[in-house]
Amino acid sequence: MCDGAAVRNVRLLVEYDGTDFHGWQVQPQVRTVQGELQDALRTMTGESASVKGASRTDAGVHALGQVAHFMTSSRIATEQFAKGLTALTGPDVAVVASEEVSESFSARRNARGKIYRYALWNGRAPSPIRRRTSWHVRGALDLSAIRTAAGHLVGRHDFAAFRAASCDQPTTIREILGLEVSGATGDLVEVTIEGTAFLQHMVRIMVGTLVEVGLGRRPPEEVAAIRESLDRRRAGQTGPAHGLCLVKVHY
Amino acid sequence: MCDGAAVRNVRLLVEYDGTDFHGWQVQPQVRTVQGELQDALRTMTGESASVKGASRTDAGVHALGQVAHFMTSSRIATEQFAKGLTALTGPDVAVVASEEVSESFSARRNARGKIYRYALWNGRAPSPIRRRTSWHVRGALDLSAIRTAAGHLVGRHDFAAFRAASCDQPTTIREILGLEVSGATGDLVEVTIEGTAFLQHMVRIMVGTLVEVGLGRRPPEEVAAIRESLDRRRAGQTGPAHGLCLVKVHY
Repeated sequence: MCDGAAVRNVRLLVEYDGTDFHGWQVQPQVRTVQGELQDALRTMTGESASVKGASRTDAGVHALGQVAHFMTSSRIATEQFAKGLTALTGPDVAVVASEEVSESFSARRNARGKIYRYALWNGRAPSPIRRRTSWHVRGALDLSAIRTAAGHLVGRHDFAAFRAASCDQPTTIREILGLEVSGATGDLVEVTIEGTAFLQHMVRIMVGTLVEVGLGRRPPEEVAAIRESLDRRRAGQTGPAHGLCLVKVHY
Repeated sequence: MCDGAAVRNVRLLVEYDGTDFHGWQVQPQVRTVQGELQDALRTMTGESASVKGASRTDAGVHALGQVAHFMTSSRIATEQFAKGLTALTGPDVAVVASEEVSESFSARRNARGKIYRYALWNGRAPSPIRRRTSWHVRGALDLSAIRTAAGHLVGRHDFAAFRAASCDQPTTIREILGLEVSGATGDLVEVTIEGTAFLQHMVRIMVGTLVEVGLGRRPPEEVAAIRESLDRRRAGQTGPAHGLCLVKVHY
């Protein structure tokens, strides 16, 4: 730095409505959350910083608690980044907090766990108000069957059957710490999944499979067999992106 | 009817995301919920029926449980209207149910009460995910003060101080059966108001006034004095439309 300003590592807590984004990761020509934040940061600081997220959420996936970080040598007060980035990005993204962290902190590598929530709308008619944030499943879901099936997904296992064909992770062993199914308010069913880390599309394939159990198309026990098969073709469909939300990242 | 088909009165239960509508009531040149339903009905039946709603919600106001009715001499099965109208309208409106009612039924005149819910987002940062369905109020709300103030609005009173200047109702006596303030999940505060009937903007002005109490700008007791003054100028601002939702109409 020519002006001798210290380099800071700044951690961001980010919320976004994923509907109009092509996902987190920056790509040419399309609107992405990372791209929007990096553009806003360039406006604020004049620097071209890379904003690295804990999770590269798919196109259409939402976040209440995405975590990201970037390096800066600007003199802007750390807490001003939240306000400034919120003002400079669209109304569908907000930086809820910004704080200085140690230079070695990585939002992705240091994440100890993540909580995702998948919303299912189980009303007979579609729900206009919930249409951007839930998957409309017609046919009454048997929540008890879903809960039994979900039990087979909790724990440390090889989840090769629940990952996208394009997933290039070297190992498919992951640990699911909890999987809760709440049918609290009327026809809204929320599946909350906590894990140490996730494979590509893992939550969406799990939910797609659980929905087939809930509709009576597969017995709950089959989920254990699917998991043990390590075969993606045995699992259910990938639930649509817009039902999914990254709720929290633990450090 | 030249074909001798019986005339039926059909009641609809309607949900909509009011964001992209200029309110319920049909107006030339702009998109309205009533207009969208009437156009869809014309496509289904070939008839030009008037779809009359229980509440003429303002532009931007949402509904989980609007009720409407229309007369038809078509031969379409009553329960098919829900499906057909949902399919023929945009994704931001759905007809959840359709049923035949007595010829004398009026969604508006026979309504015995309505429940509205107003959502306040009280986080420091704006919430992208809740931005279409809540009013972002900065500054911590004192929910206890709001509850005390709300007590002065419950009961049968003259609510002239809480109606829009343009409201032309002959009487301003209304009865509020209940007003609950829940601060359940994090920074989301929901104000649920049940009443026999409402004046124009009544809920929005009540909420705008309660928010000023919650921010400490007025003592809770002032709300009783405002109500007794019958003077709109003494009440608070009209809360923005997008925080409001018509939840239910009782018959």
